Amino acid sequence: MSTHKPSPPLNEATWCPKMSNGINNGGKTPFLIGVAGGTASGKSTVCKRIMERLGQDDIEHSERRVVCISQDAFYRPLTQEESTKALKGVFDFDHPDAFDKELVLKTLHQILDGKICNIPNYDYVTNARLESTTTIYPADVVLFEGILMFYQPEIRELFHMKLFVDSDADTRLARRVMRDTRERGRALEVVLNQYTNLVKPAFEEFCLPTKKFADIIIPRGAENTVAINLIVQHIQEIVNGRSAQVTQDGTQSRQRTNSDSKIR
Amino acid sequence: MSTHKPSPPLNEATWCPKMSNGINNGGKTPFLIGVAGGTASGKSTVCKRIMERLGQDDIEHSERRVVCISQDAFYRPLTQEESTKALKGVFDFDHPDAFDKELVLKTLHQILDGKICNIPNYDYVTNARLESTTTIYPADVVLFEGILMFYQPEIRELFHMKLFVDSDADTRLARRVMRDTRERGRALEVVLNQYTNLVKPAFEEFCLPTKKFADIIIPRGAENTVAINLIVQHIQEIVNGRSAQVTQDGTQSRQRTNSDSKIR
Amino acid sequence: MSTHKPSPPLNEATWCPKMSNGINNGGKTPFLIGVAGGTASGKSTVCKRIMERLGQDDIEHSERRVVCISQDAFYRPLTQEESTKALKGVFDFDHPDAFDKELVLKTLHQILDGKICNIPNYDYVTNARLESTTTIYPADVVLFEGILMFYQPEIRELFHMKLFVDSDADTRLARRVMRDTRERGRALEVVLNQYTNLVKPAFEEFCLPTKKFADIIIPRGAENTVAINLIVQHIQEIVNGRSAQVTQDGTQSRQRTNSDSKIR
Amino acid sequence: MSTHKPSPPLNEATWCPKMSNGINNGGKTPFLIGVAGGTASGKSTVCKRIMERLGQDDIEHSERRVVCISQDAFYRPLTQEESTKALKGVFDFDHPDAFDKELVLKTLHQILDGKICNIPNYDYVTNARLESTTTIYPADVVLFEGILMFYQPEIRELFHMKLFVDSDADTRLARRVMRDTRERGRALEVVLNQYTNLVKPAFEEFCLPTKKFADIIIPRGAENTVAINLIVQHIQEIVNGRSAQVTQDGTQSRQRTNSDSKIR
Repeated sequence: MSTHKPSPPLNEATWCPKMSNGINNGGKTPFLIGVAGGTASGKSTVCKRIMERLGQDDIEHSERRVVCISQDAFYRPLTQEESTKALKGVFDFDHPDAFDKELVLKTLHQILDGKICNIPNYDYVTNARLESTTTIYPADVVLFEGILMFYQPEIRELFHMKLFVDSDADTRLARRVMRDTRERGRALEVVLNQYTNLVKPAFEEFCLPTKKFADIIIPRGAENTVAINLIVQHIQEIVNGRSAQVTQDGTQSRQRTNSDSKIR
Repeated sequence: MSTHKPSPPLNEATWCPKMSNGINNGGKTPFLIGVAGGTASGKSTVCKRIMERLGQDDIEHSERRVVCISQDAFYRPLTQEESTKALKGVFDFDHPDAFDKELVLKTLHQILDGKICNIPNYDYVTNARLESTTTIYPADVVLFEGILMFYQPEIRELFHMKLFVDSDADTRLARRVMRDTRERGRALEVVLNQYTNLVKPAFEEFCLPTKKFADIIIPRGAENTVAINLIVQHIQEIVNGRSAQVTQDGTQSRQRTNSDSKIR
Repeated sequence: MSTHKPSPPLNEATWCPKMSNGINNGGKTPFLIGVAGGTASGKSTVCKRIMERLGQDDIEHSERRVVCISQDAFYRPLTQEESTKALKGVFDFDHPDAFDKELVLKTLHQILDGKICNIPNYDYVTNARLESTTTIYPADVVLFEGILMFYQPEIRELFHMKLFVDSDADTRLARRVMRDTRERGRALEVVLNQYTNLVKPAFEEFCLPTKKFADIIIPRGAENTVAINLIVQHIQEIVNGRSAQVTQDGTQSRQRTNSDSKIR
Repeated sequence: MSTHKPSPPLNEATWCPKMSNGINNGGKTPFLIGVAGGTASGKSTVCKRIMERLGQDDIEHSERRVVCISQDAFYRPLTQEESTKALKGVFDFDHPDAFDKELVLKTLHQILDGKICNIPNYDYVTNARLESTTTIYPADVVLFEGILMFYQPEIRELFHMKLFVDSDADTRLARRVMRDTRERGRALEVVLNQYTNLVKPAFEEFCLPTKKFADIIIPRGAENTVAINLIVQHIQEIVNGRSAQVTQDGTQSRQRTNSDSKIR
């Protein structure tokens, strides 16, 4: 995603300016895929693999026909008091209240309307939003991944397809421990305490009960190449179908009709 | 599937005659999809919907490019003693030993070799195989569904994609009770006893532990249209890809390469 | 439990009259055991077996040293509209709102205070409370069973011991179907629809998440005689301990101290 | 447990010499409690708390009326090749074959026969048995704990009470990681790899399916004081009951009869 620095402070006007035309997708409603799952389930790696397989990870953002957005960009800026808690590792980043639900909702609606959006660049050190934002251009397919993507009904209902990346709780903890101690240099004890006291209870209360809303459950995560291939082909088919139609007649068609699926 | 009556008794020679050429699929290895799940999970209905959506359910069997086979056809013919148990509702039809594993394996290998196969027509009244058989013609995609499709490693490993249709245990029992009392005219108490004493323990010992081998888990079953659509499009893509290639150059290609997936 | 008919209408004054002295238990705080679990898990049968084993089921209520109360007595009287829904089988009797939480809480506090209580006699036909009530006399041990006993924190925290009777979802449905069709003469389809549309979702949302609060999980239910024996002996020990102490010194002691447990 | 060093090599004759009389328990069959659960579920800590609460942990072994034995003492001596694997952290210590099943069974039968037993002292460094053994004297109650106590039917059936200590998989991994890195000085990566590749698969295949055989499930483990108290009182009651009876009439009675449980 492209990052513009510095930028004017985020406000209603600058977040998602009205665009009379979508750029990449001929004004059609993008196909919106929600990807949920517990911490370290493999959500973001699955999305990364999909983008790589589709060759969408290394091209200009304005040229992308498939876009991936993380819920992490939508963390609320913390108050002074909350920031202090975060520093001590006792702020609950896995609770629904940690996210700016209104901004997620607004962004999703703008995406569905084929508009250009700007989403926050979140600074994990200061737990605040940077002045810069990331521009999301209209695309054919949008992946939106995060632990709580299916928690709020009004957000959940916007997805055309809901994927739940399902890895066992102990497998997820093993991955998180490796990641947090190695890549983020955190002390093992801190990682385990935070997991036990905050991450696990929040997962069980807010994330796990949303698994029942999933259309497709992807076991194991990023190593599951068969499932990733299936999603890759599906996305590619949507993109190809739109290219063809735009070329031929410019009409919109998000989903094949029943007769279209028949093999002749 | 076409049923020929009468037919010569089944034997090694007649089961799956060697064919030097596949008929429908230009000699290419079919894409083999295994579909497992507990009783009344929705396995066979999911397969039925897929066949309908692809328009493969109401055409000549020899013309089909997608074929669906049920593990139920591969029940072993019962001995006299076993048949008596079956009549009393105490034969365990959910145990791996109830199936002719060797015949499943042989059939799968013949399918993969692009050969015409004949599979048994099983008579649920006499618990024996009829003299007639059903002919399975070579196709681009073969769905093979049954509670224990992923139980034997040598069978499991043959599938290019493994789907597990996952419905809650109580939901499955509710469906089974309705089906068995209504459609099959069985007494409620008999249905519940059989479920509790045979079906449930066998599911927990033999079927449930195979869920971990699945590539894709389809929650809820036949009502899950998003998941069914995803599989339908995937199958269609395979069939279309083969048609195109056969027309253009006749070469075989079961799976797109990485570069093929890229969107240009 | 003794039933007095007719009785004055229930009101604040008559529900649980203040008693200056407990009758059976020498004014000591009763040991309060909460028993939760899903529908047809075996909660009430486990309690029944415990009462039988202790010889408390066939003696005068005022003489009982162990008392068993069901949450079912605390259903709210339904409004006209709710009653109509109930008749159609679409009122959700498994939702926390179906119970008179305040009355449960008040009753528990009165029990803990060693007071005589009157609890409602609920009429399942009219979904209203009868004019009569049931008198609960002070006792050494009180079992309180119901699907949602651990749902409200202020109720949950009052129990000295929390048991969760844990039977598989399909086993519970099988039991419920037998009970409702046979003993209650309901149509199979109505039973299954009610289970699927109301009972199951309420269990998963409100009851199952309270399992984590349990001290002891009793698998299988009433057939689990080892677990029932364990609870029976524990209750008996409490009752015996109190008898001995009352005789000797009249002092109160609900729980043995650490040193008391030592074997000399 | 008392450790005698050095001692004659273990053989059939010395393992469990026939004793014409039990020492502590008047020749009565001990009450045998099996305690199973996954790694780091809290099995051994629960048993430790029980022994402490009963004052049995700090007295002479020959005086103990309650004895606790760990399955870990029954690891098979490893071959050279297996030892090399163990050093590399790739020997599967969680597989049923890692244990000397015959010796467990023999020991249990000797305990039930009221005989003195000698059990191995296992050296975790050399993965061999020491020459010394530990003597187990006849007692009123014997706790036998280990991950696979309920795996073999012939062992499982010997227990009068079966407890399963049930902690979540991620909680168990968090505990194991802390224990193995801190107390045993192992590298984090080694601990996580061993867990993922050996411990977890073995738990899911061999231990978890035995949970259904438990009479009582103890959630959370050692912090669950209510459950521990319940077991402590039960054991104490057994011990007291036997003392009383031995004093009065010397007759044997392992379990109260139904009428005995009644409160008069």
